[in-house]
Amino acid sequence: MQSAQPNSDSETSWGRKDLVELQSLSAAELNLVLQTAAAFKTVGTRHIKKVPALRGKTLVNFFVEPSTRTRVSFELAAARLSADVINMSASASSLTKGETLKDTARNLEALHADVIVLRHSSAGAAQFLAERLESSVVNAGDGAHEHPTQALLDAFTIHEKKGRIEGLHVGIVGDILFSRVARSNLFALTRLGAQVTLVGPSTLVPREFERLGVKVSHDLDAVLPELDVINLLRVQHERQSRSYFPSLGEFTSLFGLTKARAARLREDCLIMHPGPINRGVEIDSDVADSGRSVILDQVTNGLAVRMAVLYLCNAARSGETIS
Amino acid sequence: MQSAQPNSDSETSWGRKDLVELQSLSAAELNLVLQTAAAFKTVGTRHIKKVPALRGKTLVNFFVEPSTRTRVSFELAAARLSADVINMSASASSLTKGETLKDTARNLEALHADVIVLRHSSAGAAQFLAERLESSVVNAGDGAHEHPTQALLDAFTIHEKKGRIEGLHVGIVGDILFSRVARSNLFALTRLGAQVTLVGPSTLVPREFERLGVKVSHDLDAVLPELDVINLLRVQHERQSRSYFPSLGEFTSLFGLTKARAARLREDCLIMHPGPINRGVEIDSDVADSGRSVILDQVTNGLAVRMAVLYLCNAARSGETIS
Amino acid sequence: MQSAQPNSDSETSWGRKDLVELQSLSAAELNLVLQTAAAFKTVGTRHIKKVPALRGKTLVNFFVEPSTRTRVSFELAAARLSADVINMSASASSLTKGETLKDTARNLEALHADVIVLRHSSAGAAQFLAERLESSVVNAGDGAHEHPTQALLDAFTIHEKKGRIEGLHVGIVGDILFSRVARSNLFALTRLGAQVTLVGPSTLVPREFERLGVKVSHDLDAVLPELDVINLLRVQHERQSRSYFPSLGEFTSLFGLTKARAARLREDCLIMHPGPINRGVEIDSDVADSGRSVILDQVTNGLAVRMAVLYLCNAARSGETIS
Repeated sequence: MQSAQPNSDSETSWGRKDLVELQSLSAAELNLVLQTAAAFKTVGTRHIKKVPALRGKTLVNFFVEPSTRTRVSFELAAARLSADVINMSASASSLTKGETLKDTARNLEALHADVIVLRHSSAGAAQFLAERLESSVVNAGDGAHEHPTQALLDAFTIHEKKGRIEGLHVGIVGDILFSRVARSNLFALTRLGAQVTLVGPSTLVPREFERLGVKVSHDLDAVLPELDVINLLRVQHERQSRSYFPSLGEFTSLFGLTKARAARLREDCLIMHPGPINRGVEIDSDVADSGRSVILDQVTNGLAVRMAVLYLCNAARSGETIS
Repeated sequence: MQSAQPNSDSETSWGRKDLVELQSLSAAELNLVLQTAAAFKTVGTRHIKKVPALRGKTLVNFFVEPSTRTRVSFELAAARLSADVINMSASASSLTKGETLKDTARNLEALHADVIVLRHSSAGAAQFLAERLESSVVNAGDGAHEHPTQALLDAFTIHEKKGRIEGLHVGIVGDILFSRVARSNLFALTRLGAQVTLVGPSTLVPREFERLGVKVSHDLDAVLPELDVINLLRVQHERQSRSYFPSLGEFTSLFGLTKARAARLREDCLIMHPGPINRGVEIDSDVADSGRSVILDQVTNGLAVRMAVLYLCNAARSGETIS
Repeated sequence: MQSAQPNSDSETSWGRKDLVELQSLSAAELNLVLQTAAAFKTVGTRHIKKVPALRGKTLVNFFVEPSTRTRVSFELAAARLSADVINMSASASSLTKGETLKDTARNLEALHADVIVLRHSSAGAAQFLAERLESSVVNAGDGAHEHPTQALLDAFTIHEKKGRIEGLHVGIVGDILFSRVARSNLFALTRLGAQVTLVGPSTLVPREFERLGVKVSHDLDAVLPELDVINLLRVQHERQSRSYFPSLGEFTSLFGLTKARAARLREDCLIMHPGPINRGVEIDSDVADSGRSVILDQVTNGLAVRMAVLYLCNAARSGETIS
């Protein structure tokens, strides 16, 4: 993480053409991504925010489930690596004509797409493509499975602010049950030596999660003073109608990071949120804008982390290195 | 305006990181934009239509209200300055998930967006962002408030064709009441020394406009022979249902630029329209295509004017100059 | 087709600023496109997949009828020629405000669009624009008229795989009646010396087609063993409701390329489809993925053919040659 040279002096090498999930990544691989991202982060502060690493390469942002924020972050990351970017959304794509995901993807491969960034509502969609294509496939969120670049940017931000991840206590709070963000986070953080506690109502945070090496709590107030990092997930409003919790107001009263609760956090506790935030629901508006909040740092770091992932996967696929 | 060198030998400097409205611009500032645009206009005629002025910079076209024409014009202007362009529309953006405009914009800032071009249905939206962001904000139309680059391209076109703006009599005709184009035009033109007369039915052109330093008339035929420039605004069809005027036919008979009326214009009167035109409503189809019509010149000049605005605002924000 | 140098040593020159249809193209012109595409195809295999041929030029993808595949293919072709690309779709465009196609196109011309790629539901739309604009117009499909780049990529693929087109017997099967793909194919292939047989139910393949110099058959099984190439068109599901054929099942039993029928094809018969394929309808899924299928080669070749068309039309319009 100290070096400005991607990859230099590292004993680890990156051999994955795809990034589908974090569950199988070693600590060395995770650290390599973070170290590479640190090098790329400096590009964002330059007068000319571009490097030629992916010049002449084609990245396809293939979003079968819409997400402007993630799409824009990948699009900017690719532009800064000098790649050409094509955006495709589901409603616009041939999927609406009954074509299968596999056929659409094989068409992209036939067009010499070097990297396909896939967002899809079905768990396993990215893995399905990665196994069948020569193109690199980067998972930008697949159903309730994983969202690896989100967790990597969270880990990067924690390391940047705290100087380490090992030994920290990270609380992930709220709508955990179907959260790909929570899953990717807990895989990365436990692998890097953090202690993770998942906090929320029992309907959204069942005890079964303990099998994944984390603690489960239904009492935020008890956990609050012990945390080095608190990561608040976005409440999915549609959950309410399905009776996972009685009302937004009751959710907030039990699991929202109100001003009163924020006052009970450690002074140096980081406040994180993957965005977009529901001000006044999972987090108080003033708390979101307070000095301990690193929510916008997460956005900035997302760019550097995605540059690193695109760079590493492309290099592993093509056998190329930066000149 | 004679020099091909942007900014050279000018005593005025541009200190605004944003362009939100024209109401507060001095004549010197307005002239500086027009002079810079004249220099950039030559780029459009070159073999390779690009300059490296914004290379490595990121422009976000953030259109919360749709407008293909304006979006395309800004996108091309940015491409010719070698910037990277990201397009975001409202329906696709997180605004649909309930995120506030401010949060969306702060996310764009966290992604190191250098310039945000905002189109929004609410007056004041661009000002709101400009005050809160370090990014440059360029207003591409905000509700019934202003549309500054449209008025600048209108002024540029008048100056290009007439050699001056001072002392000219410009009639702006039609659907004035909620028109941001009319507002920005009258601010720019009166500041540059033109006489402006607003013409239309009393429901759409109330006397109150005279407080802004212009004349108001409800009789186009009386004003017609005195004009050096006639600028016909697009009739918003939805007005009809709200009873601002009885019918399109009656509007055309009183305020449309028919062939008969065009014959009564001065021989050298410029015919302008911000587009898209309703042929046969506010302007006769043959008149729109006639030799005095500069409607397509306006489109071409929009590109040069937007290049100038992006260049100047970016330079003021970053303290950079063209090398 | 042997030379890697576009255009070199060719006695034919390309004088068309537009590509609207293939019906009027000479064999020499068709061969020139194929030869130029062969040269560009090598670009797709390079480390950096770009040439500066259209640097500083602007291409507008203007799709009034949606087609992600064709749009992406043209967008990538333009990117590889280093052009700037603007995407415009119909619903987003001013056409929804009642502007005419001509006015929209003249606006694009006023913005110095060098090439306009038009997809439109009305036959004749591309010709209409080509006659009125100085910009190059490339037809990306206009109603039931023509889809010239699709037929060129089909011809390119046949030539690439077979070494020749003259003397081959090509069957085009299925939904021919309103198919612009079939029309462009039969014009190109007959001009290049192939024998073409159109096969399908009499409702979709009327005898009148014989006037265009092709054979018509309603019996696929009779034709099958004689073919060097079989090109299966996509069944338009909406046809069924209009009673052109009784059911998808019956269509498949009579005209689908099932495994049994594929076994009766010559061993070296090419299997083609313009995509997206309806697996199990006009073609069996395993047959589509079999060794004789060149469906994905068609996609790859589409890129090279479109690069060639954009390059040639731009050069003819501007009088420029590659440096």
